[in-house]
Amino acid sequence: MNHRMVGRFLSLIVLTEAIFMLPAWLISLAHGEMKGAWAFAVTIVATILASVFVLLICRKAQIKFYAREGLVCVGLGWIIMSFVGCMPFLLSGEIPNFIDAYFETVSGFTTTGASILTDVEAMGKGMLYWRSFTHWLGGMGVLVFLLAVVPASGKGSGFTMHLLRAESPGPNVGKLVPRMRQTAMILYLLYLALTVLCFLFLLFGGMSPFEAICTAYGTAGTGGFGVKNDSIAGYSVYIQNVCTVFMLLFGVNFTCYYLLLLGRLKDVFKDEELRLYIGLIVSSIVIISINTRGMFSSLGETVQQVAFQVATIITTTGFATTDFDLWPTFSKAILVILMLCGASAGSTGGGFKCGRVLLLMKNLKRNLQKTLNSQKILVVRNNGQMVNEKVLSNLNTYLIAYVFITIASFLVVCLDGESLTTSMTSVIACVNNIGPGLDGVGPTKNYHMFSDMSKVVLILDMLAGRLEIFPIMLLFSRNTWRKLV
Amino acid sequence: MNHRMVGRFLSLIVLTEAIFMLPAWLISLAHGEMKGAWAFAVTIVATILASVFVLLICRKAQIKFYAREGLVCVGLGWIIMSFVGCMPFLLSGEIPNFIDAYFETVSGFTTTGASILTDVEAMGKGMLYWRSFTHWLGGMGVLVFLLAVVPASGKGSGFTMHLLRAESPGPNVGKLVPRMRQTAMILYLLYLALTVLCFLFLLFGGMSPFEAICTAYGTAGTGGFGVKNDSIAGYSVYIQNVCTVFMLLFGVNFTCYYLLLLGRLKDVFKDEELRLYIGLIVSSIVIISINTRGMFSSLGETVQQVAFQVATIITTTGFATTDFDLWPTFSKAILVILMLCGASAGSTGGGFKCGRVLLLMKNLKRNLQKTLNSQKILVVRNNGQMVNEKVLSNLNTYLIAYVFITIASFLVVCLDGESLTTSMTSVIACVNNIGPGLDGVGPTKNYHMFSDMSKVVLILDMLAGRLEIFPIMLLFSRNTWRKLV
Repeated sequence: MNHRMVGRFLSLIVLTEAIFMLPAWLISLAHGEMKGAWAFAVTIVATILASVFVLLICRKAQIKFYAREGLVCVGLGWIIMSFVGCMPFLLSGEIPNFIDAYFETVSGFTTTGASILTDVEAMGKGMLYWRSFTHWLGGMGVLVFLLAVVPASGKGSGFTMHLLRAESPGPNVGKLVPRMRQTAMILYLLYLALTVLCFLFLLFGGMSPFEAICTAYGTAGTGGFGVKNDSIAGYSVYIQNVCTVFMLLFGVNFTCYYLLLLGRLKDVFKDEELRLYIGLIVSSIVIISINTRGMFSSLGETVQQVAFQVATIITTTGFATTDFDLWPTFSKAILVILMLCGASAGSTGGGFKCGRVLLLMKNLKRNLQKTLNSQKILVVRNNGQMVNEKVLSNLNTYLIAYVFITIASFLVVCLDGESLTTSMTSVIACVNNIGPGLDGVGPTKNYHMFSDMSKVVLILDMLAGRLEIFPIMLLFSRNTWRKLV
Repeated sequence: MNHRMVGRFLSLIVLTEAIFMLPAWLISLAHGEMKGAWAFAVTIVATILASVFVLLICRKAQIKFYAREGLVCVGLGWIIMSFVGCMPFLLSGEIPNFIDAYFETVSGFTTTGASILTDVEAMGKGMLYWRSFTHWLGGMGVLVFLLAVVPASGKGSGFTMHLLRAESPGPNVGKLVPRMRQTAMILYLLYLALTVLCFLFLLFGGMSPFEAICTAYGTAGTGGFGVKNDSIAGYSVYIQNVCTVFMLLFGVNFTCYYLLLLGRLKDVFKDEELRLYIGLIVSSIVIISINTRGMFSSLGETVQQVAFQVATIITTTGFATTDFDLWPTFSKAILVILMLCGASAGSTGGGFKCGRVLLLMKNLKRNLQKTLNSQKILVVRNNGQMVNEKVLSNLNTYLIAYVFITIASFLVVCLDGESLTTSMTSVIACVNNIGPGLDGVGPTKNYHMFSDMSKVVLILDMLAGRLEIFPIMLLFSRNTWRKLV
């Protein structure tokens, strides 16, 4: 383990975070929330001092690293970043319990949107701003941001590739352009542009600038934190529809937008993941609308409400306008399956990812054919290109790890004695970074009733889900910490 | 597709079944159940005539076949066998609806034990005997029985191996002795001996011979059909304990008994699957006993009841003595996980199998190590022997198919509007051949309320679960029916 290298990166992460905390501090000041302002100030100053100190120590880091260092940087980075991020909540006394504050922050950075707060509106504006901003920062990844702005030496490209791979949602990012830094910058610019667009549309609908920016952050990161106790339910149909459209847009693989900018329309429309993603959305909206038609007064309202729920679930955002826990079992089953499936790879959405589901199905079909005819050599193709067997093998490993983590977490959470549905869907909602589940953690409920142990497990689940399992799992492996010979 | 070869095998299967139906016919006659006796007689005569006719047509079958024929024989064999098996229920009018009768028979042969009957005790003795006997026949597999008694020509060994592989539960049967026929015979003799032992122990506890033989069949096949409406709950503690012990014994890989007979004790105790199986049982009993201690009057009763439930669930038998749906969530969660895990490979138990779980965990560990150090060549070992990568790849395919089938079935069953827990656990209980699930299909409830469509899906699930998915999935593939060039 190259400790200095890791130390340097971790310091850069929290330094960046401290700088990003400044607007929240200003908002607290502007609203006269002195406790909040003080909490932000202390956190910012302490973080900057500590990170500069570590940076000085680790100045002479050797540029020598393996996949291991990359994964450790990402895993530890997110844990420490959340630690710093929860300090304002804790110091200001807005969330007095450490586990709760940490849960809320991890939920923010991982764009889960699961909350332990029972009264969001009672919080200070600065805190609410920071809470929503964690979604935005976590959505595209703070390490990816670092890569975009911090100049890396020529030798560092192997390392940055490992970082980008580990933090970006989905299996196939990094092929956009040959140079990593450029990739990261393009991703962030697209992300910023879409967020601004969303903000303007919301502003146009009559939202205050503060509410619009917070809601735009929550939508862009597909996170789900709102600034109202009833989430999005109290806003106009126009605002709800803007959210629906932008949630779905942020669930698309950003590579598609890049191709669109280059004018390669044909490639975009041929993208198999995008087709599956759109297919799932359209068919779910149609089927659930038929199934729930009787629950709304008009067909228009039905489709509008169903489209919102499908968008909030498949992109794993978690905004709520209605209690879908009261819908028919069949509709709920479709929503649960969308929860598991999730949005596209290379988007800010969570879940298993459409691209992975597609590859799993293709691999399954291939292997069944192999059973019939073992001599034949069959390859799996994605968008016409052969998929490396190593990618398929990694995918299987991912699925198995995913199943084991879900089952193990489920078992611990069950100790709290909540219902089976509550326990199961809370784990699924956290591993997939969705937010609301069903029953006790349904869209109108929240996570405050869980024990500290369950909250810790759910925190690990959220991190594992956001970082695609391996960086967090490897932190628990003894081999990771062994010195290389 | 070698149609004649397949035709010959299918005829042999139903011919064997017709002969095995004779005792049920005699029991009906002896109890003066004329409708039942007539139904059995018609079924037996019609089946014998039809199968002899097909055998004559397919006399000149070419011995030329691939894995495909083996899988098709097994898949179709079980479907046709269940068709013949449900005729007595239908013709006698005891189960007047075809789908219900077919459901009950498939549930019997696949040793699931899910029932659509609301009043078992109203049935005739002959019918009850046949219903329980389907468990015994299905437990070890009727094709395996055929292999043991029908002399195969020397060239047939490739085919018989495919059959044995396809029908035997678990991934690694067939390594016992080099010759398939001998393997099948040894398996069946062991199976018969253990069943007789169970029968004698039950008889000793004061059961009538009829009840003892039916219960022994249900235990041996780890099926779960009983002859009383309250399953095993009305019997003495002694009888319940006998069931507990024998259920657990039938959940052990039969290879272990063979090794025991050869005096290779050391190999038995070193068997990793057996260790996991015993470990799971003991730890589950201890943990659930602590969790449910307050629900029973004494510690002895707690352990006795918990041991019974753990045995009935992990071996996927499905006998009931108490309504574990009322137990605390944590205990229920453990039971659900045991349901998913299931018994050992090469036993009569269902589920995913301990051996598979073990291989999955080892493979996961290996692949995680690979992520850290991609240069190193790492192999997975089972009982000290290297596991072929092809076996691991098949295992992954199996898991993926398993997940897809469960999700697709869940979606269809949800159309009935039962609760999410009912819908989910009914599918899990059928795919894993358990029988009872939770909520609406809990241990004191049954499957009669489902629509015909759900029943058909659950029938396919039971067959897919018993035959380890591939034979049933391949029946739906166009490639299977294509002529080979």
